[in-house]
Amino acid sequence: MWPQQIFTEFNRVRARQKAVKVIGVDHGNISLLKHGLIPDIAVGDYDSLNAAERAMLLENVQDVRFAVPEKDFTDSEMGLATALFDLNSKDVVVIGATGGRLDHFLVNLLCVLNERLRPVADRITMVDQQNLIRFFNPGKWSIDRLKEYKYLAFVNLTPVAHFQIADAKYQLADFSSNYPVSFASNEFVKDEVNFSFTKGVVAVIYSRD
Amino acid sequence: MWPQQIFTEFNRVRARQKAVKVIGVDHGNISLLKHGLIPDIAVGDYDSLNAAERAMLLENVQDVRFAVPEKDFTDSEMGLATALFDLNSKDVVVIGATGGRLDHFLVNLLCVLNERLRPVADRITMVDQQNLIRFFNPGKWSIDRLKEYKYLAFVNLTPVAHFQIADAKYQLADFSSNYPVSFASNEFVKDEVNFSFTKGVVAVIYSRD
Repeated sequence: MWPQQIFTEFNRVRARQKAVKVIGVDHGNISLLKHGLIPDIAVGDYDSLNAAERAMLLENVQDVRFAVPEKDFTDSEMGLATALFDLNSKDVVVIGATGGRLDHFLVNLLCVLNERLRPVADRITMVDQQNLIRFFNPGKWSIDRLKEYKYLAFVNLTPVAHFQIADAKYQLADFSSNYPVSFASNEFVKDEVNFSFTKGVVAVIYSRD
Repeated sequence: MWPQQIFTEFNRVRARQKAVKVIGVDHGNISLLKHGLIPDIAVGDYDSLNAAERAMLLENVQDVRFAVPEKDFTDSEMGLATALFDLNSKDVVVIGATGGRLDHFLVNLLCVLNERLRPVADRITMVDQQNLIRFFNPGKWSIDRLKEYKYLAFVNLTPVAHFQIADAKYQLADFSSNYPVSFASNEFVKDEVNFSFTKGVVAVIYSRD
C-alpha cells in the first residue's frame, strides 16, 4: 500500500472514532513520522532502521518499545498485542499490512491465528484502499453491508467445520474442510449476511474493484 | 499487479523458455489482447466482459473455452487445469494473480490446494514484480537461490507435520501446526536451502523489497 493512501485510510478511521491511539510497527514508524503523524507507541526491533532513522524515532516518539526477539511474536503481532492487551482496545484497525511483499502480507493476515491473539481476533480489522478484512471465531455471526464495498468473500484460514452462509447472493449449505479455501465474489442482497461455523477461524473480506 | 509489469514478467518467462503457450483467464484475456498478446487459449465464464470485449475475444482468440460454472473449479483453477492436464505443461507460470483484491489473490494462492490440482502443485509458479511463489507437497526438497530475490519465506498453507528447514539463515528444527503460519524474511546462506515435511502443502515465497 502506498503511503498517501495509508494516510487517507487513517484519516477515515480517525474521523469515525474519537480516541484513536497510533501504534507504529518497526519501519512503519518512520513512514508515519515522515508524514507528520507521531505514533503514541512505537514497537519493533528496528533492525531495518539506519542511524538517522533511529535518532528520529527516539527524538519524536515518547513511548518506544524494543521488541525482544521472541519466538512466539513477530513485530506485527507485538503491535497487535500492545493494542489489544496493553491498551485494551476494543477495535484495532491495521493499515499498511497488505501489498508489496506477499510473505509480509501473509505474516499479517495469519498472525490472528497466533494462540494468544486468536481469542480476540474479532477486535481486529485490516484495511487498505480496496479491502477491509475482519476475523471470526466459531459461532453464529451477522455482518452488515458496508456501502463502499461491492464484494464479500469468506476464507477459512484454518480447517473449518459446518460453515454455513445465509442471506447472501451465494449461499453455503454446510461446508467442512481440512484446508483453507477462498470463497470470493459473493455479495450482500439484504443489509446483513448471516454465517456460522463450529470450528476454525474465518476471515471476511469486503472488497471493491 | 499493473499491466505493464505483467508483460515485463511475461517476456522474462518467454526469454527463458522455448515453447510458451499463453492461457488467458476471463477478463485477463482482454488485458492481454489490449497489450497485443494473443492468448492461445481463453478460459472463463466471461461474465465480467461487456459486449464489445466479448466480440474482441471471439474475433482474436482461436480457442475460446467457456467454463461451465462448476462447483469444484474457479476460473483460475480452470486455467491451471487446462495448462496442467490438457497441455500437460511441466512448468506453469501464473502472472497477474496477485495484487488488488485480496480475496482474488487468496483464491489464486489457495487454488493449488484443490484436490485435483494439489498432486501437481510443484509444477505451478506464481510471479509478480516483487514475489515468486512455488508450492510443495510432502517430501525432502532442495531449492536454489535466485539472485534477483533477497528474501525467502515458507508458509504452510494447510496443517503441516515435521517441517524442517536446513542451510538457511534461520533454521526450523521440527515444526508441526494445525493452522497456517508465514515464516518470512529468511535468506539463503548457501546456493541451496533444504527443507522437508511429512504432511501438508508448503508455499515457498522468494521476494525482494
